[in-house]
Amino acid sequence: MDRIPILRMGQFLLVTIQVDLYDRLALDLEADLVKTVSTTGAKGILIDISAVSIVDSFMGRIIGNIGVMSKLLDAETVVVGMQPAVAITLVELGLPLKGVYTALNVEKGMDLLRLKIQSDHEDEDEEIDPENGYNNNFIE
Amino acid sequence: MDRIPILRMGQFLLVTIQVDLYDRLALDLEADLVKTVSTTGAKGILIDISAVSIVDSFMGRIIGNIGVMSKLLDAETVVVGMQPAVAITLVELGLPLKGVYTALNVEKGMDLLRLKIQSDHEDEDEEIDPENGYNNNFIE
Repeated sequence: MDRIPILRMGQFLLVTIQVDLYDRLALDLEADLVKTVSTTGAKGILIDISAVSIVDSFMGRIIGNIGVMSKLLDAETVVVGMQPAVAITLVELGLPLKGVYTALNVEKGMDLLRLKIQSDHEDEDEEIDPENGYNNNFIE
Repeated sequence: MDRIPILRMGQFLLVTIQVDLYDRLALDLEADLVKTVSTTGAKGILIDISAVSIVDSFMGRIIGNIGVMSKLLDAETVVVGMQPAVAITLVELGLPLKGVYTALNVEKGMDLLRLKIQSDHEDEDEEIDPENGYNNNFIE
């Protein structure tokens, strides 16, 4: 397999990582994802890593990069399904995945993305109409 | 990787096939899927094969089996993202994937599943309340 498929679901993109992300495959995924966000105008990316049992610093950095790049294109990234051992390894490697959100599974990840997008919209509304007089602080 | 992850999304299950389905992996996927349908009560299965460029008779039979088994557990199966070459090969192998529906991509597959489930529900309603007097024939 030479490409990891990117599935479009409404305004979200879903990627499940099932194979070892060797260098070329990971860089291709990064480029494909950013291109797909740009062409589809997707508002969120879900990366499912439930099948990943071993993670190295390269893969950790790639996931972090995807988060930062998609943020520049106004899309949030949520990593879902992380195995406990992977969480331990990431912290021990000093890669706490800054710039990406995490959730336990795809459903919770989608809920999180919807909440994020909604709160962004409400922030925009607030700028347009400031005399509403309420503070949109239900998310930290 | 020893297992293909099954993602739960509401009442649907999503599987993306990215690796060659050698015998053991395919049988494990079949068993896992049927078990997951049974435990979660899922109403539909989406199998994305957009990354599959080569298909053999074994894989064709496994997909067909998944369709029939899940049907017995009251869940529909939709295969999405099939490459044209795969469609040609399946027909040439004499495996037209009976028992499973197909759709162009995940979004269309989800719409199809929703329609199927809705129409099933309406059929049930009709049985309970037959004097409604309408025929639910918007799907052939």
